[in-house]
Amino acid sequence: MQDTEIPTWAPRYASREARMQASEIRDLLKLLDKPGVISFAGGIPDPELFPHEKIETYYQRILSDPSSAKRALQYSVSEGDANLRAWIARHMATKGVTCGADNILITSGSQQALEFLGRLFISPGDTALVTAPTYLGALQAFSANEPVYDELKIENTNRTATSYEQAARNAGGNLKLAYVVPDFANPSGETLSREGRETLLDLARDLDIPIIEDSPYAALRYNGEHVMTLQGLDILKCGSIDTSRVIHCGSFSKVFTPGLRIGWVCANREIISRLTIIKQGSDLNSPAINQAVMHLLASELFDAQVEKAVASYRIKRDVMLAALEKHMPDGVTWSHPEGGLFIWVTLPEALNAKMLLPKAVEEASVAYVPGHAFHADGSGLNTMRLSFSLPKVEDISSGIERLATIVKNAIDNKA
Amino acid sequence: MQDTEIPTWAPRYASREARMQASEIRDLLKLLDKPGVISFAGGIPDPELFPHEKIETYYQRILSDPSSAKRALQYSVSEGDANLRAWIARHMATKGVTCGADNILITSGSQQALEFLGRLFISPGDTALVTAPTYLGALQAFSANEPVYDELKIENTNRTATSYEQAARNAGGNLKLAYVVPDFANPSGETLSREGRETLLDLARDLDIPIIEDSPYAALRYNGEHVMTLQGLDILKCGSIDTSRVIHCGSFSKVFTPGLRIGWVCANREIISRLTIIKQGSDLNSPAINQAVMHLLASELFDAQVEKAVASYRIKRDVMLAALEKHMPDGVTWSHPEGGLFIWVTLPEALNAKMLLPKAVEEASVAYVPGHAFHADGSGLNTMRLSFSLPKVEDISSGIERLATIVKNAIDNKA
Repeated sequence: MQDTEIPTWAPRYASREARMQASEIRDLLKLLDKPGVISFAGGIPDPELFPHEKIETYYQRILSDPSSAKRALQYSVSEGDANLRAWIARHMATKGVTCGADNILITSGSQQALEFLGRLFISPGDTALVTAPTYLGALQAFSANEPVYDELKIENTNRTATSYEQAARNAGGNLKLAYVVPDFANPSGETLSREGRETLLDLARDLDIPIIEDSPYAALRYNGEHVMTLQGLDILKCGSIDTSRVIHCGSFSKVFTPGLRIGWVCANREIISRLTIIKQGSDLNSPAINQAVMHLLASELFDAQVEKAVASYRIKRDVMLAALEKHMPDGVTWSHPEGGLFIWVTLPEALNAKMLLPKAVEEASVAYVPGHAFHADGSGLNTMRLSFSLPKVEDISSGIERLATIVKNAIDNKA
Repeated sequence: MQDTEIPTWAPRYASREARMQASEIRDLLKLLDKPGVISFAGGIPDPELFPHEKIETYYQRILSDPSSAKRALQYSVSEGDANLRAWIARHMATKGVTCGADNILITSGSQQALEFLGRLFISPGDTALVTAPTYLGALQAFSANEPVYDELKIENTNRTATSYEQAARNAGGNLKLAYVVPDFANPSGETLSREGRETLLDLARDLDIPIIEDSPYAALRYNGEHVMTLQGLDILKCGSIDTSRVIHCGSFSKVFTPGLRIGWVCANREIISRLTIIKQGSDLNSPAINQAVMHLLASELFDAQVEKAVASYRIKRDVMLAALEKHMPDGVTWSHPEGGLFIWVTLPEALNAKMLLPKAVEEASVAYVPGHAFHADGSGLNTMRLSFSLPKVEDISSGIERLATIVKNAIDNKA
């Protein structure tokens, strides 16, 4: 009795499966195996900055004591390590967010926080407001819940609360959330002004929706004035974290290391309690040992590590901005980020950054992420995201020079 | 302009939120803070068995070399560590499953595998077949997708494929999957016979649905004959892993440590590729450093560690079975597991194990999990799950003696 047919799985999948797509970045990264490619593609931190000796010391400290070792290697609570949550609560206070450990949930990176929030809020057909461009990992996390996207415009817009509500109703669902990366955004590199934040808070109040403030880069400011978190500003208005509608997502990935997979959500206790149940059903808890190590890292090293990372990335950003200025032809513009990992480049309208990428990799050995990947509607074809965090300083100049040549040739071919 | 109302979040939640409930076990565990309680409740491994010195050595080995440290602390691929996947593929071959590393996805414990599979297959109203009792973490993982449950009966049943199909249609959806823990099941401790496995495979073929084989305890066999995995048996029929309809979930949590949060899915490449996309959108990847440590543990220590765990848990099982035999009154029955961590106790029909629990904790300082928590329909009120893995050997006898007294008193009160 043989049954050697490959099962026809697709009819068995849930309807949401159709919206779960591989990230384009993921497929792009396969291009980069080519030796000698200078990659401005991945938004990943420089491993030269990882405090690996300290991390080694902390694992050893925890594991060499049998009683702390047994605790660190056992199942643990879904909310996360109590010491780490307390540290994060104190850290949030420096961002204007007075809160306690019970306002914090530890997640496996902020990606997990976004995925949980999508599941908590979005039913199929509901509307999520996202900027254009926006972080593509957020689109991936939300899309599995079959939302409709509407473009969140904050400044210089005639969109009103009523127009967002009307659009959501027309799409057949309810307005559920607004998602923003206010500081040194992925991918645009831009920072939302204080006035823009106030406008967004007013809009969210009018719409009675939560704002997801995704803030993995906020510690990495290279120049300019600090702007208070959306959550801090909201608390100034509403009086306390437990009445705030802002859900803040933070991460240790960009400051220390993404390898321990530790991020957090800071929110009112009602949201934290719902997310904790989701965490329990999803993976029970994040590894206790990694959380214990991260607690030691954060307690003993946070400010020094931020200083080290800022000094290094500031140089790389400056070198990339100078190279863009020197080499890019007329008609190309770019953002001037005050922090973070990204510069956003806009090519002349007629150019297509997606089509240009294979040429850039093959002929110029340089890579980037085409900007349409960061648009819920697939627009932005003439844009690209450049990351300056990973390449060596000396490669940034030559990589931009090579990229500029590709862009010049493309402009000439269109002329 | 004050806005000090607590936001009314509930109307904003997705409809699935109503099905995301905290595990009863979680709330129960809060009872156990009472000093002196002997707990048979949590199904958690004995930390005395954790190879913490080896684990310390392996973290050090990886982190003391700058180049392996940088790799281990960076983002990594969603599929998981290539060396670990290759080791697991070889390990699966010992279970009758010839497969390659591309048939393996690393997950954050097998809980994450169950959660991903629920999202991949179940649309609201679809039917999932589960045994009664079944693992409550699976119910939690699936329920967020708003399924209907139908009881999977494998042996001694007049349920037919047609009757399952009819029931699913009547419930308004499609039949999507069958879920089983074939070896030393959580919570029943029972093992599905070879004949039962063949019957289940035939049923799944008739229904054209996948079988999720959840197998975290299979290595922990204390006596009796090994029975081949469902996946291995299916491959005997269908010829290869890539035509198999069995999706096998494994875990290192019960053999080595749950603290590194490493499990896996072994399945046809189509399923692995879908789950990898879900993994990417959920948390990008499991910590590379933990996977690298687990690869060293598995490569260098697996058989020895299994032997150590089996020797220790066999004694505990035997002591618990002997104590039940000695102390439990007539009318109480229990399973005789050949492995795993659990014994399933059935009280006389009139007794309610949920109601009895506070009395057991307060008057006898002994705890268990009431069996209704493992029933999709909330039945099984006269059952309880006892775990023998965590308590000390000497506490097992006295704990069972104390529990038996509570049960005797309850029977007497009903008489």
